[in-house]
Parts: sequence; C-alpha cells; structure tokens
Amino acid sequence: MSLPRIAIDAMGGDEGVRVMVSGAALARRRHDRFKFLLVGDETRIKSALDSHPNMRGASEILHCDDVVAGDEKPTAALRRAKTTSMGLAINAVKTGDCGAAVSAGNTGALMAMSKLALRTMPGIDRPALAALMPSLGDNDVVMLDLGANTECDTRNLVQFAIMGAAYSRIVTGKEAPRVRLLNIGTEDIKGTDSVQEAARALRAATGLAMSFEGFVEADKINRGEVDVVVTDGFSGNIALKAIEGSARFVTDLLRNAFTSSLRSKIGFLVSRPATELLRHHLDPNNHNGGVFLGLNGVIVKSHGSANTQGVANAVAVAARLLEESLTERITADLAELGTEKLRDKGSATK
Amino acid sequence: MSLPRIAIDAMGGDEGVRVMVSGAALARRRHDRFKFLLVGDETRIKSALDSHPNMRGASEILHCDDVVAGDEKPTAALRRAKTTSMGLAINAVKTGDCGAAVSAGNTGALMAMSKLALRTMPGIDRPALAALMPSLGDNDVVMLDLGANTECDTRNLVQFAIMGAAYSRIVTGKEAPRVRLLNIGTEDIKGTDSVQEAARALRAATGLAMSFEGFVEADKINRGEVDVVVTDGFSGNIALKAIEGSARFVTDLLRNAFTSSLRSKIGFLVSRPATELLRHHLDPNNHNGGVFLGLNGVIVKSHGSANTQGVANAVAVAARLLEESLTERITADLAELGTEKLRDKGSATK
Repeated sequence: MSLPRIAIDAMGGDEGVRVMVSGAALARRRHDRFKFLLVGDETRIKSALDSHPNMRGASEILHCDDVVAGDEKPTAALRRAKTTSMGLAINAVKTGDCGAAVSAGNTGALMAMSKLALRTMPGIDRPALAALMPSLGDNDVVMLDLGANTECDTRNLVQFAIMGAAYSRIVTGKEAPRVRLLNIGTEDIKGTDSVQEAARALRAATGLAMSFEGFVEADKINRGEVDVVVTDGFSGNIALKAIEGSARFVTDLLRNAFTSSLRSKIGFLVSRPATELLRHHLDPNNHNGGVFLGLNGVIVKSHGSANTQGVANAVAVAARLLEESLTERITADLAELGTEKLRDKGSATK
Repeated sequence: MSLPRIAIDAMGGDEGVRVMVSGAALARRRHDRFKFLLVGDETRIKSALDSHPNMRGASEILHCDDVVAGDEKPTAALRRAKTTSMGLAINAVKTGDCGAAVSAGNTGALMAMSKLALRTMPGIDRPALAALMPSLGDNDVVMLDLGANTECDTRNLVQFAIMGAAYSRIVTGKEAPRVRLLNIGTEDIKGTDSVQEAARALRAATGLAMSFEGFVEADKINRGEVDVVVTDGFSGNIALKAIEGSARFVTDLLRNAFTSSLRSKIGFLVSRPATELLRHHLDPNNHNGGVFLGLNGVIVKSHGSANTQGVANAVAVAARLLEESLTERITADLAELGTEKLRDKGSATK
C-alpha cells in the first residue's frame, strides 16, 4: 500500500533545521515506508540531510525564505500562509500532496492556519489540541482540549470525547478506551452545566467505541485508571501545565536535596540508574506530539524545545495516525453516535 | 489583649477526636494565649484531653451527639446546623462566643453552613476557599478559589485578589504581595473575558496593598515568582489537584525507581536524609489549613486526613488570622478600592 507523505516544517521550533531533519530521519527507522516533504531554507536543509543517508530518496525539499515567528500573533501569521514554511507545510496537506504535517513552531499560528486551510471535519464544530501524558498505567493518557478552545459547550465536549477515543485506540490498541470528563468531583451534581450535560449525553449514547466512565478529578489523571481525559481548553491547559510544573518542582526539590550534603551526593551517584529512569519517564520528549484533532488532515505539533528524539516521536505520531486512518475512524464514530441526537442534546444546554 | 477563643469541630475528619485535640494542644505551644471550645462527644474529648495537660484550663467542651458525614450532601447537612459538631462550632463564631472555627469535616457542608450562618462580608459577593501551597521561593503561595464557586465573574475575581492579598500579607509579612490571575498565557489577549476584564480592573486600581503583576500560567505557580494566584473555583480546584497528583506521581515513580535494583536500594538508604527533606517539603500536613475568605468570621478547613501536625498547622492558621485581624484588613482594602468603581467595572462584562 502506498502511504501519503509527511510534510515537515523544518524552520519551526527553538532548535532549528538540524533537529527537525534528524528527528524525521530517526522516525524513519521505525516507519520506513514514509516519505517526507521538507519545507524551509533549501541550503540549510541540504546541509542537515548530509548526516542522514536514510533520508536520501525519501525526501523532497520545498524551498521558502519566510518563517512564522514564535511570538507572532496568529492573525498576523495567517496573512503569510502562502510564503512561510508552516503555511506551505499545511498547504501540502490541503492539496493532498501530503497526508500529515509536523511543526515545532508557534502553536496558535499552527492552529489558526490549519483550521483555515483544512477546515473542520463534517460533524465537528471545533478542532481540539490533544496530547499524550505519562501515567502509572500501561499506556499514556490522551488529554484534550489543551488550549485551542477557551470556552466549550456540551457538543464540543462530546465531540472531543469521540475524537480522543479514536486517538487513544490507535495509541493503546484498546477497542474501548476508558473515557472520563475532567471535573472538580465525581458526583453527578459537580461542575458546570456543560460538563454535566456532556456526561449525560455520553452515558446515553450507544455503539461508541469507548467505555465512558463519568468524571475524573485532576489528581487522578496519571494513576492509570483512565485512557482519555476530556475537558475545555482553559481547564485542560491549566491541568497540563500544572502537572508539568509540579513534576519539575518535585525534581528541582530532589536535586536540591541531593546536593545538600556529601552523604546525599554519594547516595545520588549510587542510585543514578534509578534517577535516570525517573528522568526518562518524565522527559517530555518521550511524550512529544500534540495532535490537532477534528481537521480534514493530520497536523502534529512538536514541542518548541524538543530534541531529536522528541521530534522523532512527533513524526512517529503523524505516521501512526496516517497508517491507522485517524480521520476515517472519527468520521465512522460520529456516524455511529447519530448526529441528530447529539445536536438535540447539545442545544438543550446552550 | 484578650483574644477570642477558637472553636474546634472535634468530630470531623478521618482521624477522629484524638488527632483534633492533640493538634489543638500542639498549636497551643506556639499560640499559648488562645483558648478553645471543643465541640463533640464529651466522653471522647475528655479522654483525649488526658494526654494534654497544657489544654487544661484552656479548653471548654460543648457536648453533642450528631456529626456531619463525610459524603453527606451540603443541603442535608444544613438542616442539622443546630445539632452537629460542625454546625455548633460555626454557630459559636456567629454568636461571638468564638472568633474562629476549625473543622476537618465535609468541605461542601462546612462552606454551606458557614455561608448561611456567618453571611458574606459587606462588599464581598461570594466567599472563596484559599489554601497555601509550597513553592521554591521564600514563602508559601496563597491560591484561591479552590472550588467554592464553579463559575466566577470579573467582580468575584477582583474580590478574590483583595482577599488573597490580605491573607498573604499575614502569612508572608510582605506589604505588597505579588498577585497574578491564573491564565492559559501571559499575553493580554489570552483567556476568558472575565479574566481579561479582572486584569484591567486590578491594573487600574490604585492604593491596594498588593502588587498586581498580570497573568501566571499553571506551570509557574510554584516557582517563587508569585505570592497570590487568583482564579475561579473550577480552574483552581483542577490546578490544585493536578499539582498534588503530579507530585504524588513523581514520588511514586521515584519509589519504584529506587526499589528496582539492589544498587538503587543502597543509594536510597545512603541518601535518606535528602529524600526525607523532599517528603517533608511536599507533605500536605505542612501546608494544612484552607481558609474560607470573605465571611464575617474565620473558618479554617483542615485536610480530612491530616495528622496531629497538620491539625496544629490549621489551628495555627486560625490563630494568626485572628491575631492579625484578617477580616478587618479585607474590609479596609475594599474601602480603598472604592466599591462603586469596582461595581461599574464588573457589570460591564456580565
């Protein structure tokens, strides 16, 4: 079977062309059927390709001079969709030249440009940003929305649940991932009207490829008891960053503690393999690759500060979503839900 | 100066009478001018007092048989305000018999009963739940609201900022604590209308005993760069629990890592003092004592699972808030802000 190419915005991210190209090359060791369209400065891309013979014959370069800046407003970036590496990578998905695009650039700009160029899928009102988070369970947890939509209604949340479950099925291999809505308690009366109504709609729905299990509180996200955590973009962004910040806080305390005495320093050296394991488990590069779900095409956001391994993971996410036909899965699930029924449920709480 | 007594709901919490009484006794070593009204089963309280000679002459018992259950709905608990240990402890604040009440019982019931009995202060629309969180800085961070108000408007957020700053001044001794609104980015355009409008109102206000410094993202709460984090109850509850859950997740990973090999086990033993320091820093008992701000009286919520040290910290929080006249400080700050001005700002965004 012939697979679509993956467009790489080679200019986005803090680490530049070299990391994007070497990340794609590393991903290609696992997904060797994939080919790439590398978008950006031709000279620098060619120079980066020199170190990666496995990319020869597997990649084409699309030259451009213009780059979306990291601090640029999405509205400003939108005007340069036809000249920037980010815009051209997305456009390659729009024209069907590529099946997916990966960028480590400005998240807001990537979202705005992707939405305008690719449009949302039939049956989806708004796309959502989903990411994988480490857990104590056997698999990573999918959480969405992480900031694409500041405020969400019932319909949005139900659609996010369906999209998140489809993503989780691909990542975990589970037929019916355990889906929960993020809330401030697990009782039915807790939370906003839209969260409560979304729970009723998901509980009533039959035939969905998920096991909807009610609410989850933010301290249980990583316990291995849930596969998909659904929330609005404001709460999701806060939960994600609180988790990242708290993990860094604890590891900072640990480092301080370990360097506070000679005895601790010796203990640290002896237990190095243990703390390395911890570091590996918490390294965001190992969970890299936020996905914009709900668009007509696969768009993957790599962390701005991701290293080669991180970019490789983001590219691998794009490859798996193409191999497993994410977009088609979501379409099928939406048909299963019965769009009319959902519409009634959603509008009742507006 | 004669200080008001502190009412202790001796029956609330998972650990029972003994921990509440010994916690009060421990707090009294630091705040030895305070006296207590211990509310609950007289026989059990007397038995617990036997071990604490420093409480003799400093405590009176108010007997009752009834207790608010941990899983009881607030509406059900409200009906038993005159018979339960929680209700009677709050009532002692209402009558002026005590200046503050401390309970480790059902949070929702404590909030509902306190609000009904004590009413909100003039100039405050809704009370908020505030707590102290550990940070890398020199002092704990005050965060509010943590779940008392699922949805908040601009006025609520501005009032929370004033109440949180008053609390932080008492805890940190700073004249102008650094106050920030929790948001999903630091640019002006980020977040909901109410968050943006609250930022404008706080920036425009003069004469407040705080330094308002804009927005803070959830990964920066613990970095020591902010003293008061203001948010609505939904986001605040999610941020608080995400931080707690993530800290536990990392320490669980660490424990797993340390027990994964003999070498690690030895390393762990050698570096025990370091990991003990970490444990101490993260132990919620060392930051115990959520406060309901904005009521005509001081109500402190102790963690349900707090140990003697935790209860002592909660009682010490109540004692300091009385010593430093929290309620009067908030009243003075509200007068400074100019209630009319705030009202105009708030209503514009509703």
